[in-house]
Amino acid sequence: MAEKQTEEKKSALPSKSNFSEWYNELLLVGEIMDVRYPVKGLYVWFPFGFDVRKRTYAIIRELLDKDHKEALFPLLIPETEFMKEAEHIKGFENEVYWVTHGGKNELDVRLAMRPTSETAIYPMYKVWVRSHADLPIKIYQIVNTFRYETKHTRPLIRLREITSFKEAHTVHATWDEAAEQVKEATRIYQEFYRRLAIPTIVSKRPEWDKFPGADYTMAVDTLMPDGKTLQIGTAHHLGNNFAKTFDIKYEDLSGEQVYAHQTCYGISERSIAALISIHGDDKGLLFPPEVAPVQVVVIPIIFGKSDDVMKACSDVAEVLKKDGIRVALDTSDERPGAKYYRWEMKGVPVRVEIGPRDLKNNVATIVRRDNGSKETAPLVNIAEEVRKRFGAVHESLLEKSAKSLKERIIDCKTLEEVKDRITTGIARIPWCGERDCGLAMEEAVGAGILGVPEGELGRGAGKCPVCGRGTENMAIMAKTY
Amino acid sequence: MAEKQTEEKKSALPSKSNFSEWYNELLLVGEIMDVRYPVKGLYVWFPFGFDVRKRTYAIIRELLDKDHKEALFPLLIPETEFMKEAEHIKGFENEVYWVTHGGKNELDVRLAMRPTSETAIYPMYKVWVRSHADLPIKIYQIVNTFRYETKHTRPLIRLREITSFKEAHTVHATWDEAAEQVKEATRIYQEFYRRLAIPTIVSKRPEWDKFPGADYTMAVDTLMPDGKTLQIGTAHHLGNNFAKTFDIKYEDLSGEQVYAHQTCYGISERSIAALISIHGDDKGLLFPPEVAPVQVVVIPIIFGKSDDVMKACSDVAEVLKKDGIRVALDTSDERPGAKYYRWEMKGVPVRVEIGPRDLKNNVATIVRRDNGSKETAPLVNIAEEVRKRFGAVHESLLEKSAKSLKERIIDCKTLEEVKDRITTGIARIPWCGERDCGLAMEEAVGAGILGVPEGELGRGAGKCPVCGRGTENMAIMAKTY
Repeated sequence: MAEKQTEEKKSALPSKSNFSEWYNELLLVGEIMDVRYPVKGLYVWFPFGFDVRKRTYAIIRELLDKDHKEALFPLLIPETEFMKEAEHIKGFENEVYWVTHGGKNELDVRLAMRPTSETAIYPMYKVWVRSHADLPIKIYQIVNTFRYETKHTRPLIRLREITSFKEAHTVHATWDEAAEQVKEATRIYQEFYRRLAIPTIVSKRPEWDKFPGADYTMAVDTLMPDGKTLQIGTAHHLGNNFAKTFDIKYEDLSGEQVYAHQTCYGISERSIAALISIHGDDKGLLFPPEVAPVQVVVIPIIFGKSDDVMKACSDVAEVLKKDGIRVALDTSDERPGAKYYRWEMKGVPVRVEIGPRDLKNNVATIVRRDNGSKETAPLVNIAEEVRKRFGAVHESLLEKSAKSLKERIIDCKTLEEVKDRITTGIARIPWCGERDCGLAMEEAVGAGILGVPEGELGRGAGKCPVCGRGTENMAIMAKTY
Repeated sequence: MAEKQTEEKKSALPSKSNFSEWYNELLLVGEIMDVRYPVKGLYVWFPFGFDVRKRTYAIIRELLDKDHKEALFPLLIPETEFMKEAEHIKGFENEVYWVTHGGKNELDVRLAMRPTSETAIYPMYKVWVRSHADLPIKIYQIVNTFRYETKHTRPLIRLREITSFKEAHTVHATWDEAAEQVKEATRIYQEFYRRLAIPTIVSKRPEWDKFPGADYTMAVDTLMPDGKTLQIGTAHHLGNNFAKTFDIKYEDLSGEQVYAHQTCYGISERSIAALISIHGDDKGLLFPPEVAPVQVVVIPIIFGKSDDVMKACSDVAEVLKKDGIRVALDTSDERPGAKYYRWEMKGVPVRVEIGPRDLKNNVATIVRRDNGSKETAPLVNIAEEVRKRFGAVHESLLEKSAKSLKERIIDCKTLEEVKDRITTGIARIPWCGERDCGLAMEEAVGAGILGVPEGELGRGAGKCPVCGRGTENMAIMAKTY
């Protein structure tokens, strides 16, 4: 349907080195999002983009469904509930959309459009949680949430309607069990992003950057092509803060009423922003096979007329389809070059070409979208051969993106160095962990501390650039979206 | 998690003859919806209910995906767009929720929460439609929509947040093609409801009851246990009314700019209200196998200890699972009777019991939830035997519900008769088709004309009870939800 626009804009994709323009243009010509909706910060998912979303969210559902349950809570939250948690409301009060009228009547109680669903879900948890035997509860929902963003909005990244917020909310008996669940959440998210071939860094956000109302926040970040980091997942330990506010208590083994402990963790369509930004290139979109709407395109290479080649192509398409592969067969009248161009733009990871000579040899030519490599493969094994390329493309995308991330994390000793480095990537610098030092570092550099990363990345040796004390903690700093 | 409540309420399910109480109680103890959310007309989907929803909507997606595409448009519609179509706004102005504030700021332009998405989607169609080659467009989305209901609200039936509105919006070159699409939509909906074993009547709504802004409206109704009809699907021919308002034009073959013709059609969670109401009974829920969250429960019949029986049950559960069947194995310590009770309440269509004697004979006892029939079947074919029952349960549910509908459609000659009959079902009566006569009939009876049904049901012979003219059109009248 929007083919016409695509045709017109065909030659308009700017180079990826011009990231911001490339991104905006690619969303339109790649038919991911239409940004022409007449309200700032609200966008339309094209069917093609929605297909990518569906496949991406199928992965997160698969991972969560192992021990979470999906449910659905209302979008509208009465002001009286929304205002209960003091820290929480402080964090959101400038961002909440308020519904004040129904028809021509003014509402008695204003309704908040959920910016996140703690205050919608926890009044129900109060009713549901009775005894230790009811715990743990692990529920998630995938919903639209709303933020009145006053900053510059950007499709999939900074939105007024987050159309695809996956939020999980768990309840546990003890603080430690909740802490374990936060770890599990970041493990699940890392697995999710591995499936998308997106490299991640997990770190504990500084105290002053945690979720409003949480004990602490773990965040999953990735690095975008322009050197800014994108937060693509968070997991919050809520302690018993919300439990106290919403009166969520259970009877423990000794018959005592005890406040429960909670976590929540979320992922949004920023996952798709990262997917598109990290893998795409000057030719357009590039999807890992698992989430590609079209996984293989079959193209007949014909000079003149060749019924045999056409038939072979359609047979191959049929075989692939039967194997469960999402395949397109392009028998249009265009030149092969024009076809390559169009399907490359759409991010199809593998192309199968068959010409008269291939046919004579009972082979097909298999071309990988990620590196352009061409190989011949026997027709008799075509599905297996194609699947082998799927694995190779995924591996190679992950390797490349992980390498690119690693290369752009630079060890620094001084804040001057940091200031210089964060224009193109992530700076890693010793930090004593003190709040005052951290805030001074952010102030000096004009960018945020993401936190002290998990694992090797967060360990080292050096001196805090502010107080000069020795420390083994390494913090990472970056410009962020 | 809500097990506790379930236990407490166990014996509380009223008889289905007391439909309204039965319905409300069943939604809670069956863990479909929690009605305790602190805003009128907003409800919570329990995980179990959400599972039913997921499987039900998978069917509608499957049917539509053959030649529609799924997309996603924003929830918020600027007042300026919303107010463009005069008829449309007249139909909705008393029901629209208005967002007036973002944070502490009053918005420049108020935002309507979609009650339906014509005015959100058609400004984009204006941009997308250029030439006859772009047509037809067939797009749908599954979204939450909002109505400020002032009448009595009821879970799944009359809601302030319709959480699961499937709305399709199509664009065509000609009025006739759009009319054909309206027919196709009602065909798809009938197929959908056949899959849910729900009988339907399709009729053309009277002129005064059509969708605001449409040329005409076709509606799909079913009959609830209490004798009131429930509208469970509609398809609207929009003519070129909205095309003119939103300037949706295409260039035809002769190069002229022509207004497009449009349709829209929708289904909501009322489909699930019908599913639960029509099949459920005094024992609780009863699902057709295709949408049952648990399709089979396997229960060991043990008096004392029997490892052999336990092993046989777990083997059978494994075999069924491998065959793609959703199975629960209940090895809890309860008596078999208590287990039957619980799984019957949950609507599991087939139960497999294995006791020592069954095991000796290499058989299992298969019990159908719908009619209680017990049969033995060889263990060696267990998956096939179970699947055979799935087919039988579905057939039998459809037959039973169709019969019940048919029996409650009563031919009437006078409005007195109609008034009497509609207390328990649908009255069928000749109607000349004139507006004045129709309105007089509604006035006299205190209930609505659903329309003249498609097919045999709408054809007959008699005299219009108001003007006395002879007619071959039969209208149906009923009390409606």
